Amino acid sequence: MTLQEIQNLVDRSLFATLAYADAEGRIQIRRVFCTWHRGLAGHLISTNTSSAHVRHFLQDGRASLYVSDDARFEGLNLTGRMTVHFERPWKELLWHEGDEIYYPGGIDDEDYCILEFTADEGRFYRYDGKGILSAPEMAEWDQGRTYADTYTPTLNDANTEEGSNA
Amino acid sequence: MTLQEIQNLVDRSLFATLAYADAEGRIQIRRVFCTWHRGLAGHLISTNTSSAHVRHFLQDGRASLYVSDDARFEGLNLTGRMTVHFERPWKELLWHEGDEIYYPGGIDDEDYCILEFTADEGRFYRYDGKGILSAPEMAEWDQGRTYADTYTPTLNDANTEEGSNA
Repeated sequence: MTLQEIQNLVDRSLFATLAYADAEGRIQIRRVFCTWHRGLAGHLISTNTSSAHVRHFLQDGRASLYVSDDARFEGLNLTGRMTVHFERPWKELLWHEGDEIYYPGGIDDEDYCILEFTADEGRFYRYDGKGILSAPEMAEWDQGRTYADTYTPTLNDANTEEGSNA
Repeated sequence: MTLQEIQNLVDRSLFATLAYADAEGRIQIRRVFCTWHRGLAGHLISTNTSSAHVRHFLQDGRASLYVSDDARFEGLNLTGRMTVHFERPWKELLWHEGDEIYYPGGIDDEDYCILEFTADEGRFYRYDGKGILSAPEMAEWDQGRTYADTYTPTLNDANTEEGSNA
């Protein structure tokens, strides 16, 4: 896969899978909405401060993030670190009208926070082969990029028609 | 979710996500076909002996398996242990006509092996709440069950029409 093809996989995804080893060394896996990206290495996820994974990431940020398109047999595994943001600019960035149903207190709801995942290595998989994304490679590719919500529902609808299954 | 609802989630899935901590402590995530189940705790995956995850599981079987239905906001995280099977009965069980394109040597191809994941704890997630599946609860539910391929393409097609995205 070219870097652009990997970026396309990231940009058209609605969900990502995150995983981390909990205090007992058990791997915990979660499925999360993940549509805000800064190139290949930076990814934002809004979530509940009270959730077990946020409590864990405040102590230990080591995590992995996986994005795949099952219909096309494409997958990207990123290993890196999760940072928990409570500052208002991050929370404003990802806030949508109507999110009050999840966070009744609005943007300032203490149960609302933003996870930032920063990758330091990637491995991609496709029917035609696999390969490694190094930190310098991602840093060069991501240079000058800023966070943006790249998800477009139309593209997603097209994907699901190809027979993808969650 | 009831045990039957969790079983339905498992049975109608085509893919699962597996994760493990590699020798450097990095979490590695993979998307795999996973349609053979024995109730809630037992799951079979056919794969390449030469792959990095098989090499790892031969040394350290600790792993987690995650099944989700994005369209319905249902997810099941299972933690447990992976066993690698090379014996012919396991390999015969999961072999499909045409698998020679992946394993030219047929059922006896040394690059073809079966992973068996055995869960010792589960956590389920749905829009209406979450909960824990204990080992005794799964053992009781799974009693008397045998491995079967539970995937039906028709059900899957119905799922994808609901807007699921890989």
